[in-house]
Amino acid sequence: MDEPVSLGLIGAGRIGTSHARVIAQDVPSARLVAVADPRPAAAEALAHRHGARAFSDGLALIDDPAVQGVVIAASSDAHADLVVAAARAGKAVFCEKPMSLTLGDADRALAAAEEAGVILQVGFNRRFDPGFRAAHDAVTSGAVGTVQLMRSLTRDPGLANPGAVPPWTIFLQTLIHDFDTLLWLNPGAEPVEVYATADALVAPEFKEQGLLDTAVVVITFDNGARAVAEASFSAAYGYDVRGEVFGSRGMVTAGDGARSSMRLYTSGGLSHDTARGDVELLGQAYAAEFVEFTAAVREGRAPSVTGADARRALAVALACIESVQTHRPAPVAEAGVLR
Amino acid sequence: MDEPVSLGLIGAGRIGTSHARVIAQDVPSARLVAVADPRPAAAEALAHRHGARAFSDGLALIDDPAVQGVVIAASSDAHADLVVAAARAGKAVFCEKPMSLTLGDADRALAAAEEAGVILQVGFNRRFDPGFRAAHDAVTSGAVGTVQLMRSLTRDPGLANPGAVPPWTIFLQTLIHDFDTLLWLNPGAEPVEVYATADALVAPEFKEQGLLDTAVVVITFDNGARAVAEASFSAAYGYDVRGEVFGSRGMVTAGDGARSSMRLYTSGGLSHDTARGDVELLGQAYAAEFVEFTAAVREGRAPSVTGADARRALAVALACIESVQTHRPAPVAEAGVLR
Amino acid sequence: MDEPVSLGLIGAGRIGTSHARVIAQDVPSARLVAVADPRPAAAEALAHRHGARAFSDGLALIDDPAVQGVVIAASSDAHADLVVAAARAGKAVFCEKPMSLTLGDADRALAAAEEAGVILQVGFNRRFDPGFRAAHDAVTSGAVGTVQLMRSLTRDPGLANPGAVPPWTIFLQTLIHDFDTLLWLNPGAEPVEVYATADALVAPEFKEQGLLDTAVVVITFDNGARAVAEASFSAAYGYDVRGEVFGSRGMVTAGDGARSSMRLYTSGGLSHDTARGDVELLGQAYAAEFVEFTAAVREGRAPSVTGADARRALAVALACIESVQTHRPAPVAEAGVLR
Amino acid sequence: MDEPVSLGLIGAGRIGTSHARVIAQDVPSARLVAVADPRPAAAEALAHRHGARAFSDGLALIDDPAVQGVVIAASSDAHADLVVAAARAGKAVFCEKPMSLTLGDADRALAAAEEAGVILQVGFNRRFDPGFRAAHDAVTSGAVGTVQLMRSLTRDPGLANPGAVPPWTIFLQTLIHDFDTLLWLNPGAEPVEVYATADALVAPEFKEQGLLDTAVVVITFDNGARAVAEASFSAAYGYDVRGEVFGSRGMVTAGDGARSSMRLYTSGGLSHDTARGDVELLGQAYAAEFVEFTAAVREGRAPSVTGADARRALAVALACIESVQTHRPAPVAEAGVLR
Repeated sequence: MDEPVSLGLIGAGRIGTSHARVIAQDVPSARLVAVADPRPAAAEALAHRHGARAFSDGLALIDDPAVQGVVIAASSDAHADLVVAAARAGKAVFCEKPMSLTLGDADRALAAAEEAGVILQVGFNRRFDPGFRAAHDAVTSGAVGTVQLMRSLTRDPGLANPGAVPPWTIFLQTLIHDFDTLLWLNPGAEPVEVYATADALVAPEFKEQGLLDTAVVVITFDNGARAVAEASFSAAYGYDVRGEVFGSRGMVTAGDGARSSMRLYTSGGLSHDTARGDVELLGQAYAAEFVEFTAAVREGRAPSVTGADARRALAVALACIESVQTHRPAPVAEAGVLR
Repeated sequence: MDEPVSLGLIGAGRIGTSHARVIAQDVPSARLVAVADPRPAAAEALAHRHGARAFSDGLALIDDPAVQGVVIAASSDAHADLVVAAARAGKAVFCEKPMSLTLGDADRALAAAEEAGVILQVGFNRRFDPGFRAAHDAVTSGAVGTVQLMRSLTRDPGLANPGAVPPWTIFLQTLIHDFDTLLWLNPGAEPVEVYATADALVAPEFKEQGLLDTAVVVITFDNGARAVAEASFSAAYGYDVRGEVFGSRGMVTAGDGARSSMRLYTSGGLSHDTARGDVELLGQAYAAEFVEFTAAVREGRAPSVTGADARRALAVALACIESVQTHRPAPVAEAGVLR
Repeated sequence: MDEPVSLGLIGAGRIGTSHARVIAQDVPSARLVAVADPRPAAAEALAHRHGARAFSDGLALIDDPAVQGVVIAASSDAHADLVVAAARAGKAVFCEKPMSLTLGDADRALAAAEEAGVILQVGFNRRFDPGFRAAHDAVTSGAVGTVQLMRSLTRDPGLANPGAVPPWTIFLQTLIHDFDTLLWLNPGAEPVEVYATADALVAPEFKEQGLLDTAVVVITFDNGARAVAEASFSAAYGYDVRGEVFGSRGMVTAGDGARSSMRLYTSGGLSHDTARGDVELLGQAYAAEFVEFTAAVREGRAPSVTGADARRALAVALACIESVQTHRPAPVAEAGVLR
Repeated sequence: MDEPVSLGLIGAGRIGTSHARVIAQDVPSARLVAVADPRPAAAEALAHRHGARAFSDGLALIDDPAVQGVVIAASSDAHADLVVAAARAGKAVFCEKPMSLTLGDADRALAAAEEAGVILQVGFNRRFDPGFRAAHDAVTSGAVGTVQLMRSLTRDPGLANPGAVPPWTIFLQTLIHDFDTLLWLNPGAEPVEVYATADALVAPEFKEQGLLDTAVVVITFDNGARAVAEASFSAAYGYDVRGEVFGSRGMVTAGDGARSSMRLYTSGGLSHDTARGDVELLGQAYAAEFVEFTAAVREGRAPSVTGADARRALAVALACIESVQTHRPAPVAEAGVLR
């Protein structure tokens, strides 16, 4: 049995804390040895919980020789620089989405990883969900034929602080998952154009400040397929992630949101509970993406989802922003340049 | 027990033949007494099967004193004139969708019915499907809160003769069902703008001739809600009609396509059959719309879906055509003028 | 188009009233022309509602020349005599289950129908439910292979008057549906032995008076298959009828209890309503059994479910009573004698 | 973060190998340090794969001071002696079901564990499945009211070597899971009597040798509830484990067998794959029972399922054997003596 891969985590916020717990509970092939966060108390607390060393500086963590792989869960605008730094230090990199907020930064990150010859995996978790994987297998096996219509949606369970949402978050942070999913489920096709419309329907009182909490996007691909991506920041019934691919030979869907196989029948009819958070809904996927990362490290191979995928999804997100601003369809920039 | 309402059917094509059978088999409150079709043999055959009189001229059928209500299932471009004629003859009118192909014709039909004081029902069958009705009840009861995101789709089981499809059929004939459904499921809101994209993906060899067999539409309502309507002329697995309404308090969906409650588990896994045709999927709805029509006739009241609804859905369809032509979002004309 | 078959209904109680409404609303091939009930007011009211003649004497109704077929929905202990009388009068007979309460009476009824050469159909409604029919098709097509394990259950929505339930009702009136279903779904096999256990769990205060409101039965067939039949008089969530057949090549199930395809997702999770009554759950089946009856009358052929089936199911029910009384397995009498 | 609990595994057969993999892949709180098997090569191979020491003698493994907890996955007739030995050595014990084949051995094992004050957990995996846990929560919260009717079934995916199945395996090894499930889902009630029937329907050619591969059991509880347990050694569609509890206020079910949320619609209708093996269907449960075991060890508390539960389920299994032998209902021995 191989030794676990030693990971250093940059970012002790919500997603970093979640990743640390997933690694500890469900990923014996990884071991968390270091945690960095600019807020020393946060780094200390999380590191202590997992028997890891604490850093206030992510770059120091990167340089720690005990760290084999770096998990980047810092704020999004720091991602690209951290990828570059980790790559230059020769460390394998797992970067949360979005890998960057500009195509230029994406190119810098990709170039650094390529030059250093290190692994660069991005946190597109749908790819590791059993339902979405089975859907992908169905598509690639030809079971649905030529792809014609697609759908992917993300609905978060709530919006704690609508005033603190950075501009364009719904495209850059939320729908970027759906864009990657749609690109992945339409293999060989390139997105050509998008039409996006967005609004503040959950918290309309923040619309003036620029909040967009609800969005619908139509993507046109070069093979003619049309895809709809849809997001809301507040689903009363929990965390909702679903996909659908319709083609010349049939349709495949993924995602049902059921918490378990339990079904309750009472005087009110049938009911069952729905998944309430991302870890609950995508727990297996979160574990599986780190299993993939450690396997790629051990085997010295590219992971199944890479920085190039992050760049492609970003190109779609940026086109959406342009579409909202111009109020008409917008072309998708040459997403494939560095692939 | 009341006597059945005597109906005259104009149009002995596919949908007319289907309506005649539904009336005979499932609607004891109606009796088919006359059938008209410009092709005398078709009129004769269908009339004979149901013990009705045959006419080659729809206007003659309208004037037959034995006919209490006229069911219009002729070609779409004849609908408005037939509505006007039947109304002027004082007959109750059931008109298949679309009631007209222009807003002007819709206004003429509405005016004639209003002037004559006759019932004018339109064949939007989703409204009578048990699942869609229950979804509508959930929306109007407030169970999903303020409507924010919607979806309605229609996928037909196949496209027999792609070269014979009139221009814009996908919007005027197919998606018009979805537009009505979306307007009905978002009560009190008006469609403001649409973005539509369409293509020939099922039969690309007919694209040059103007075939559009696949389409996606985004509708923006004046209450901020966004709706997606989607259609394909060829679903390998049958006839697929589904709806979804997402709001501030939850979501409701309708449509599952299962042929029955049977489920089969074999070495290949679980399977069950899907509905293969419109009558199979919407059989109860087809019967229920004629039950509603005869009830409205007997009670001398307006039916639950009227010519005004047809006009509103048409306004959306026409805006879609403009959006495809201009390749940008298009405003929806004052749909509500005559309501 | 043929004229409707003229039916006379004996019994204006709950099920008779329901049958009359189903015939009027959903079965154009039948027309209710006469209603008989020993309570004249009940006969009058129901007859009036459907434009039929009222009789206080079922035998007089049988003799009415306007009556082509007799629908027997009287009290169970009168069924066999009425079948005999109707058969001798040369009328087609539709008899509610149970056709009789003893094998001797079943034999009398079968003999009378055979002698007179009239149709004798019995009201086993599961056979006409689309889910159960599809399950039956799967079994007879060989899709589940050799039958090994079976299940059929009936749960009624409530027990209005526990003190008025005749002895052994749960076997003779309720589970007799399940026995017929299981015999039908295991074609070619004969029931050999049963083990039955029953109790008053819904209304235990009536146990002393002999109430049995909950029962479980195991049937052993001559092909080795074991079947479980299960009943309760009070399901809080409505009317629940399900079946399952497991065999060497797979499993088929029928029955899901959903009221429609609507699904509601709220802060409480997913929910949908369940069917609350027999007509709601089995409405299509009730209509279809009368369609079958009128078709058999018109075509002069045996219906798909006959008095011989009633006798076979009764033999199982009687063995269950013996099993409860002796508190051990009981053999099933020569069920097939008259087949 | 605590150090993992060091476990020694006795038995390198199918289930031992599976447990070792589950512990390595999914249970960071445990570490496999030793493997024993009388077949030295099997012990060596499994130990090597997991970086553990190999033993040919289970007793030597028990005495190894590096072993904190012993996982017993040896042949069933050795279980009780190994429990006693491990308890006397002061080791925490996880014993696969059945803990013993006689009530006397069960009492010995329970007494040894009690005397030594060690933890004794038994491998009833349904208790850790999310669906069954949620069903249990529904029952104990009162959501289904007073329990009246129950069902639990186990269908294995196949029978490799029908000639090598020890007598009564279907009750002692397979249905014992269902008996525990039913006792657990009917809290506070005691089983009073069983009726069991069993046969060789999967491999009838081995019936003469005593094979029983299909069984149905009815359990009567002292609160009147009736439960059906059902097993088959060969389900063509995979591994099927389901439960149902029906009570005065409703019903709860668990188990659906779906491999993932993926659904495929093709010209053949809808399909999805079913779980094919116990680890696939119950993977989360297998991991969770070891998480529970290590938690109980660390916290020095009783686990949620104990040797006393094993004794109760065994009492039901033994009564089933008597019922089959006597061909009548059999009483359940004082199952609760040592609880």
